Amino acid sequence: MLDGDVFLLAIMKKRTGILTAGGDCPGLNAVIRAVVRRALADNNEILGIKNGWRGLVEGDVVPLTRASVTGILPRGGTILGTSRLNPLESTETLERVKQNWEKYGLNALIVVGGDGTLSAALDIWRDHKLPIIGIPKTIDNDVRGTDFTFGFDTAVGVVTDAVDRLHSTAESHHRVMVVEVMGRHTGWIAAFGGIAGGADVVLVPEHPFKLSRVCELLRHREEQGRAFSIVVVAEDAHPHPDEDFLGGELSEQLFRHDRLGGIGTVLAHEIEQCTGIETRVTKLGYVQRGGSPTPFDRVLATRLGVKAYEMVLAEQWGQMAALHGNKISSVSLEEAVSDLNRLDEEIYRVAEVFFG
Amino acid sequence: MLDGDVFLLAIMKKRTGILTAGGDCPGLNAVIRAVVRRALADNNEILGIKNGWRGLVEGDVVPLTRASVTGILPRGGTILGTSRLNPLESTETLERVKQNWEKYGLNALIVVGGDGTLSAALDIWRDHKLPIIGIPKTIDNDVRGTDFTFGFDTAVGVVTDAVDRLHSTAESHHRVMVVEVMGRHTGWIAAFGGIAGGADVVLVPEHPFKLSRVCELLRHREEQGRAFSIVVVAEDAHPHPDEDFLGGELSEQLFRHDRLGGIGTVLAHEIEQCTGIETRVTKLGYVQRGGSPTPFDRVLATRLGVKAYEMVLAEQWGQMAALHGNKISSVSLEEAVSDLNRLDEEIYRVAEVFFG
Amino acid sequence: MLDGDVFLLAIMKKRTGILTAGGDCPGLNAVIRAVVRRALADNNEILGIKNGWRGLVEGDVVPLTRASVTGILPRGGTILGTSRLNPLESTETLERVKQNWEKYGLNALIVVGGDGTLSAALDIWRDHKLPIIGIPKTIDNDVRGTDFTFGFDTAVGVVTDAVDRLHSTAESHHRVMVVEVMGRHTGWIAAFGGIAGGADVVLVPEHPFKLSRVCELLRHREEQGRAFSIVVVAEDAHPHPDEDFLGGELSEQLFRHDRLGGIGTVLAHEIEQCTGIETRVTKLGYVQRGGSPTPFDRVLATRLGVKAYEMVLAEQWGQMAALHGNKISSVSLEEAVSDLNRLDEEIYRVAEVFFG
Amino acid sequence: MLDGDVFLLAIMKKRTGILTAGGDCPGLNAVIRAVVRRALADNNEILGIKNGWRGLVEGDVVPLTRASVTGILPRGGTILGTSRLNPLESTETLERVKQNWEKYGLNALIVVGGDGTLSAALDIWRDHKLPIIGIPKTIDNDVRGTDFTFGFDTAVGVVTDAVDRLHSTAESHHRVMVVEVMGRHTGWIAAFGGIAGGADVVLVPEHPFKLSRVCELLRHREEQGRAFSIVVVAEDAHPHPDEDFLGGELSEQLFRHDRLGGIGTVLAHEIEQCTGIETRVTKLGYVQRGGSPTPFDRVLATRLGVKAYEMVLAEQWGQMAALHGNKISSVSLEEAVSDLNRLDEEIYRVAEVFFG
Repeated sequence: MLDGDVFLLAIMKKRTGILTAGGDCPGLNAVIRAVVRRALADNNEILGIKNGWRGLVEGDVVPLTRASVTGILPRGGTILGTSRLNPLESTETLERVKQNWEKYGLNALIVVGGDGTLSAALDIWRDHKLPIIGIPKTIDNDVRGTDFTFGFDTAVGVVTDAVDRLHSTAESHHRVMVVEVMGRHTGWIAAFGGIAGGADVVLVPEHPFKLSRVCELLRHREEQGRAFSIVVVAEDAHPHPDEDFLGGELSEQLFRHDRLGGIGTVLAHEIEQCTGIETRVTKLGYVQRGGSPTPFDRVLATRLGVKAYEMVLAEQWGQMAALHGNKISSVSLEEAVSDLNRLDEEIYRVAEVFFG
Repeated sequence: MLDGDVFLLAIMKKRTGILTAGGDCPGLNAVIRAVVRRALADNNEILGIKNGWRGLVEGDVVPLTRASVTGILPRGGTILGTSRLNPLESTETLERVKQNWEKYGLNALIVVGGDGTLSAALDIWRDHKLPIIGIPKTIDNDVRGTDFTFGFDTAVGVVTDAVDRLHSTAESHHRVMVVEVMGRHTGWIAAFGGIAGGADVVLVPEHPFKLSRVCELLRHREEQGRAFSIVVVAEDAHPHPDEDFLGGELSEQLFRHDRLGGIGTVLAHEIEQCTGIETRVTKLGYVQRGGSPTPFDRVLATRLGVKAYEMVLAEQWGQMAALHGNKISSVSLEEAVSDLNRLDEEIYRVAEVFFG
Repeated sequence: MLDGDVFLLAIMKKRTGILTAGGDCPGLNAVIRAVVRRALADNNEILGIKNGWRGLVEGDVVPLTRASVTGILPRGGTILGTSRLNPLESTETLERVKQNWEKYGLNALIVVGGDGTLSAALDIWRDHKLPIIGIPKTIDNDVRGTDFTFGFDTAVGVVTDAVDRLHSTAESHHRVMVVEVMGRHTGWIAAFGGIAGGADVVLVPEHPFKLSRVCELLRHREEQGRAFSIVVVAEDAHPHPDEDFLGGELSEQLFRHDRLGGIGTVLAHEIEQCTGIETRVTKLGYVQRGGSPTPFDRVLATRLGVKAYEMVLAEQWGQMAALHGNKISSVSLEEAVSDLNRLDEEIYRVAEVFFG
Repeated sequence: MLDGDVFLLAIMKKRTGILTAGGDCPGLNAVIRAVVRRALADNNEILGIKNGWRGLVEGDVVPLTRASVTGILPRGGTILGTSRLNPLESTETLERVKQNWEKYGLNALIVVGGDGTLSAALDIWRDHKLPIIGIPKTIDNDVRGTDFTFGFDTAVGVVTDAVDRLHSTAESHHRVMVVEVMGRHTGWIAAFGGIAGGADVVLVPEHPFKLSRVCELLRHREEQGRAFSIVVVAEDAHPHPDEDFLGGELSEQLFRHDRLGGIGTVLAHEIEQCTGIETRVTKLGYVQRGGSPTPFDRVLATRLGVKAYEMVLAEQWGQMAALHGNKISSVSLEEAVSDLNRLDEEIYRVAEVFFG
């Protein structure tokens, strides 16, 4: 923790805070490094706020120097830590945010987060006039107003590698491999991972599935003599309401008990029941949230970080840095948080070309 | 399928068969390529037998030329296919093996397989005098008589990559990550993957675990302020008989129902119950059996293939090619199949140094 | 080679040709597979033309079935081969193209290539009315009209991996590492690879460099106690005309003799001369053109392939499939080949933030 | 730097120093972590000596705690730094080593290094009775007395990945790719990388090559219609004395000027001259020394670190920890430094099976 007084020495410099909030996402360190290096180029200061909004509520901050960000570009995680604390959860937390903002002499705050975090950022800017710039961050790619979020390409890489490996199975009897992947309410990771890996079926929340049709496809593949079938299923995919998906009681129980079961396990069980084909599950879990960001994610995160700092200089409050085509631009947080960015229909239709 | 007659033209050349049997294992193609290239260097022939022993029973074979093996070195799977058919399962299958052996004019057979396959090979050599050379193959590293089997290093690589990625999780509240890995009856993959990835607990079949001690370790880590804990558990690890492992009925049910549950899922559930710490599962499944073999596995497989063919030339029947130190040598199949190669105690003690 | 007659049987189906031309580029197989699978979904035919335009001149073609494209998605290279033959190089070659087009009963041709190939495609469509659709392909990312070309992300991945590895050097005395990368006349690979890897200097053709300034930066880093410096230089980067770059005669000789020297080697020599700091070179060469395409490139290539076939159905001749934001759309070949797509200034300025 | 006095508090604990010296080598951090964790398990202390022997000469040390080694397992480089300073270079440096040994109250020293470093360690133990344990370290695998050194597998991985990528080149005219790799005086990296990658020619220092034979092989491959040829050449490979290798003056000049030329560049030039086939070079350079160690190297380094500390407890001075088969044991430093470990003949013969 820093005493506010020591900062008075540097009175003429801008001092901008940065915080990372929400779930893990490869590329956070790349963003932090870019913001710091861009600010240093103008001889300005960056104050790192620890553990998301919690650091601003509790006054847990650290000045970020060039040395702080040396070597962090290729590392997953975030040197600042994160939390899911919402600064608006009580008038007290909000009050503390304002007090600490004053105490640390912040000119602006860069908030790196997903849907929820950016919503809070928008409210604080709109209702309390604290000058904030956002940077979208989620492996799920479900934030509107940007073509892609960093972290997504890395998560897709993990899924693709798994599907690639499953493709090289050698056994001659047919088998079904179910791969359960992340993506919360959207099918981006499933669709991109499925297309990149060459999956035979991709199930996403945007298109509720019929088990009977899935089983038909898989049986057809077996009849055609294909060595195996790969089903990629998003964690939030679910059966079509028209269909009584769940055969047995155990399956029913597990479908509701996501920690013990999860859609992948249940689906594998159901597929085995309805097709008679041996079925195995791969559940990648948090592996998708970690690791060194891909070059795509590092470049995107770096560009967003540089841009966000330039938006601070340009005082574009209430906006976030975003990717459009091969340009980095700014969009209003209002647009960004207005709704989830659901899986593009064209992408889904591309995945569908390869079903069966 | 080939007609036996066409082979008479090449009467003076040695014609050796090769088959790959059992589960998938990266490096099989590297072995096949090495055997073929080594035989061609002496102007001899290699006959590929499709789908393990099944190809010899059913007469499904293909001559392997240089073109057949071009480009296969880095590929997972096996161009010959595999099966789990045991040639000794009936007198009829054995009879067919003998007939086809004659029909195709084989001088020798190279059998690439795990424990079960090599046992059958030994029996056929010992009891029926068909001249056979073995090559050990399993991702589980559980074959005796060789320092390592190819495929193992690749499987360890998959586990290590997953554990590495889990290590970069950024969230500030403590979490337990359970990673279930393969290895059948032995803990080689779990121990090597756990050591290489820096796991905090490694559970292997050779050392039945006490859940109470695991939970104690994890709680201790949380108290010490560690950001997370990683538990690597072999698919066949099991609780110590002294301890009533399973809390709930659902958990009990799943522990017995390996397709729906599996030790990883159940263990995560139990850990969450006893420690109160949020726990997540990663189940890698067949991903561990696939993909391009690592350089270590490719070199090992290639050396074993070259050696096996030289053992054919030297008529070392009933032996298998094996790695000892940095030399390739031969050992009797008898020794190789006498027992499982269980996890080395020194390795386990090394893993234990890092527990907690 | 196929006889034209056999095709008459399938008279009612569309028969579209596809060829891949120019330098190697990861993702070509993904394109071919996507085109074939999309056509098969409509029960149409795809004819593979071997070795670029050469196959159409010489009549070397192969029908592409589902089996032809099974398993090729993750593979570098192209199952069709390529060549640099220009169909317009003589009236004879052009005549043969027309004859074979007729002979094989083509309805349309999908041409996958870079700048030169797409120019030829445009001319043939414009001047000879053969209905052609283009797909841009180059690791250099220098084709206009699309945000990115497939292959580029894979090449950047190779460079980033190299720079990452150089970053972990441990020796305590300062050293300069020069990494020469591809990109022909543009700095895309250098800039993206440099940003993603965290290079300290990036030299691109779009910004002629001053050796004196590069050396100053490197000396400054050494004085600051940095453990090493990494310079990424595009193969076509060159000194600013204002500056007498080349110290010695040997260096001069090598700069002009690109096979023996190349800019990387010469630059390392010059840096060592002017700074006195030990300098080493890494020259990645054709490694950047090979390997399995990244998920980004596979998805892009797959989407472009599907789109290109749909453009055939829509008869959008003289157009190419392209990426804009997260949409695939079409642009005229005229626009695409009007000029090189040079490195974006914003990207270069981002790279510059991290110089020194 | 630490004051010797503060250490008196911990008088009853063993205090062992550790230093890493010589060139970069992935796995150094894994060794350091293992030594520290193993010592802590016995409540003993480890003192990190900075920058190889220099830290002991200059008194630059740091106590290593559990926190010091958290997260370093997967990282290349060494947290302690290295240098090439030889403690025996003067009586003064040796005297300072002895003084600092006393000042810091060392019970023992673990020296992690290659040939030269281990020689110095042996001399200091033998002639000056400072109790030392060695751990062999080099990417070159040229230390005797151990099956493998850590770092080697990682370096081979870099080479294999490069050769794999070159294999996917698609162009239809023949081309030769020369890949220059490290290994100092031995051909281990070239041979393993060449075998794992499927090189068509491998040139190592242990077997001086005839250019005429290399060109003959390459021309033969071209005549056979092979799409390309890959030559892996060790940096220290050289022409057979019977043969006037070098055609031109420039080539001659470059062969002697290793920084500007190097064997790879010169060889490519000569091959192009004598075969007329277009030839390209890849020079991997220091990329081979960096990056995250492979699982094999991490496990080996960890086991050696644990063993080395147990050798301290057992007072096996003048010995080094080593890998034999799948066991870690100890050998005398005398044996280890008696000679270089040259490339095994069996390995070379395996590589040769695939020539041409």
